[in-house]
Amino acid sequence: MKKPLIVQKFGGTSMGSIETIHIVAEHIIKAKNDGNQVVVVVSAMSGETNRLVALAQQIDSVPTARELDVLLSAGEQVSMALLAMTLNKLGFAARSLTGAQANIVTDNLHNDATIKNIDTRTIIELLEQDQIVIVAGFQGVNENGDITTLGRGGSDTSAVTLAGALKADECQIFTDVDGVYSCDPRVVPNAQKLDVVDFPSMEEMARKGAKVLHLPCVQYAWDNAVPLRVLSTFDVNEGSLIKGEQGTKPVCGIAIQRDMALITIEHEALSNLQKHCQMLGIEVWSVIEDTEWAGVVIKLDACAKLKLVFSDKIRNSEHVSLLTTVGLQAPSLVDRSFALLAEHDINIHYVSTTSQSSMLMLSPESVNSAANILHEAFITSDELLDFQPRQVSLG
Amino acid sequence: MKKPLIVQKFGGTSMGSIETIHIVAEHIIKAKNDGNQVVVVVSAMSGETNRLVALAQQIDSVPTARELDVLLSAGEQVSMALLAMTLNKLGFAARSLTGAQANIVTDNLHNDATIKNIDTRTIIELLEQDQIVIVAGFQGVNENGDITTLGRGGSDTSAVTLAGALKADECQIFTDVDGVYSCDPRVVPNAQKLDVVDFPSMEEMARKGAKVLHLPCVQYAWDNAVPLRVLSTFDVNEGSLIKGEQGTKPVCGIAIQRDMALITIEHEALSNLQKHCQMLGIEVWSVIEDTEWAGVVIKLDACAKLKLVFSDKIRNSEHVSLLTTVGLQAPSLVDRSFALLAEHDINIHYVSTTSQSSMLMLSPESVNSAANILHEAFITSDELLDFQPRQVSLG
Repeated sequence: MKKPLIVQKFGGTSMGSIETIHIVAEHIIKAKNDGNQVVVVVSAMSGETNRLVALAQQIDSVPTARELDVLLSAGEQVSMALLAMTLNKLGFAARSLTGAQANIVTDNLHNDATIKNIDTRTIIELLEQDQIVIVAGFQGVNENGDITTLGRGGSDTSAVTLAGALKADECQIFTDVDGVYSCDPRVVPNAQKLDVVDFPSMEEMARKGAKVLHLPCVQYAWDNAVPLRVLSTFDVNEGSLIKGEQGTKPVCGIAIQRDMALITIEHEALSNLQKHCQMLGIEVWSVIEDTEWAGVVIKLDACAKLKLVFSDKIRNSEHVSLLTTVGLQAPSLVDRSFALLAEHDINIHYVSTTSQSSMLMLSPESVNSAANILHEAFITSDELLDFQPRQVSLG
Repeated sequence: MKKPLIVQKFGGTSMGSIETIHIVAEHIIKAKNDGNQVVVVVSAMSGETNRLVALAQQIDSVPTARELDVLLSAGEQVSMALLAMTLNKLGFAARSLTGAQANIVTDNLHNDATIKNIDTRTIIELLEQDQIVIVAGFQGVNENGDITTLGRGGSDTSAVTLAGALKADECQIFTDVDGVYSCDPRVVPNAQKLDVVDFPSMEEMARKGAKVLHLPCVQYAWDNAVPLRVLSTFDVNEGSLIKGEQGTKPVCGIAIQRDMALITIEHEALSNLQKHCQMLGIEVWSVIEDTEWAGVVIKLDACAKLKLVFSDKIRNSEHVSLLTTVGLQAPSLVDRSFALLAEHDINIHYVSTTSQSSMLMLSPESVNSAANILHEAFITSDELLDFQPRQVSLG
């Protein structure tokens, strides 16, 4: 019988020292001893990428993109070799592969490349020799054989893409948190770890500010039906499993996105504003058409760029935060949110609702309180249970 | 007309910091502006290889050879990228290539591999695009695509082998000394920089203790008729050019090899001793058959290993130093050496002479004085001139 195949990904903190690499090796050995084939994707040791970038920036504030990729990819080469040595020392056959050696072929966009194709034959051959295969995350080669890197969250992307290409049974993302929470526990102390999250909810949480997984990673896993598991390197637990289509579950999570801006203009300038955003590569999170004004929601740090070319038409720009309740949305949920927050004198500036989420625009100073109030009502307390039948009767 | 092609090699000290990499870039730009095609071979930044080895040894005192090569080769990948960025920043087209990208194929002996073949098409194509090509020294790939490293002096070997494969007009080894000296200037303050050295003399100097170039590097250059130039990264000068067959020049240099041992035994045990040395991989520098005893000269640090398996037969082992005068040997040179050193109460234990060198065995405490006396006589002073006619009349 064919053994199950697991892809495990360990980030920079997990690979941060010889001691933590030893902990990583123990997770791998457990999976191997449980009867799995194991492919491991690693990031550079934490701090290493920053060290290399700092060296490059002593030379040029914008170093050549091709050569920056050559430089940065050395980081994973170091960590993968150290991990392979550790496994070897512990008596397990293991081989490290660079992006090039693993045949991870990307497009030619240095520093932000996209994986085009993975020829998995080398990896499969090593797995058939009972080797643990360790692959450098974050890197590949273009069709000329030049080294490329994938940009932010690249190692997660490497892992999930490899899992898809290998038709892995599970892709495990090891990190420094022990799973996906119903809200950021630093904001909502009562936040609950979710044992299972469906893909549409996870996608919406990642899109609306949850940092635990990068959006493209979730999307790729969903598209390729690769079950994703988020778990902690430094705890023994099952983490959170992300799989399946949306159930009938009501609000399962609350995502917070800070440092956003609401840019308001006259109605007639809206389409022009949208065009400028597109031209400048600024993502528009929401378009709002009020009776008095129109507006777009963009990231705060994109404001300056926009104002530089579009200042004359902008009526106002306001620093806001977004709070998104994710899960199957009851029709009364928004009304209930307004009422609950009003009790605490919190004003919702604007709401945008889909079948999977309700995004509330709030002032930055009220978003933490609002998250606690809504989490208490919709997730922690019994009110949720009371609330559901009412939804049905109102729906 | 085809442009001349120069291979330049810069070691770890030259690549040690962003500041020194800038100096390296200036040497390259000078060669490029002088109308040459330039291929550059670089070592890892000084200290980097030691840092990586220390990480590996925290895991295993003898790390897996394959993975140690993966680890160490990251060092040159960093330095080559930083140099390419620096050249780009200064307005010169430059591309870095790993050993794999430069198609440097070695045998499978990890940590001490030998270059088997270099497919130079990639490099030539880049040179034809007017690029400066920067190649990682010390590394290659075996036929499976596994990363290998070349062992000690590896970057010099990479440079000279590349120069041979590219039929380069000159291979320039940049280092922290400004050329080949007639003797180590730290021992003989009057030592002279040699503008030109013939290959047989350079080979003999390298073989007998001169540290400026590794023996295999000299041998490869000689075999492939690649003129070698040794020069300093941190000075502006022509360095020393190594080329051509032996002239009629008398003593051109004195090489010193410290920390040697003379192992003495009964005559009948000599062949057995030689067999043991061969078995243990111990290089025999000289075999001596005296009237009373027989002996071999080996490195001091190999003594313990030899004694472990051959202790019962060893009569004596003595710490000695070797002083070798290199150049066309006059028949009277050895007699003259005995006389000159006797004047200073220095005793020569043993002499071994070839047509290209005379190797004197001395006690460790007398070798520095002996080097100064013989250098003064044969190289610095007029006595050499007086000496030559006498040689002829005596010959």
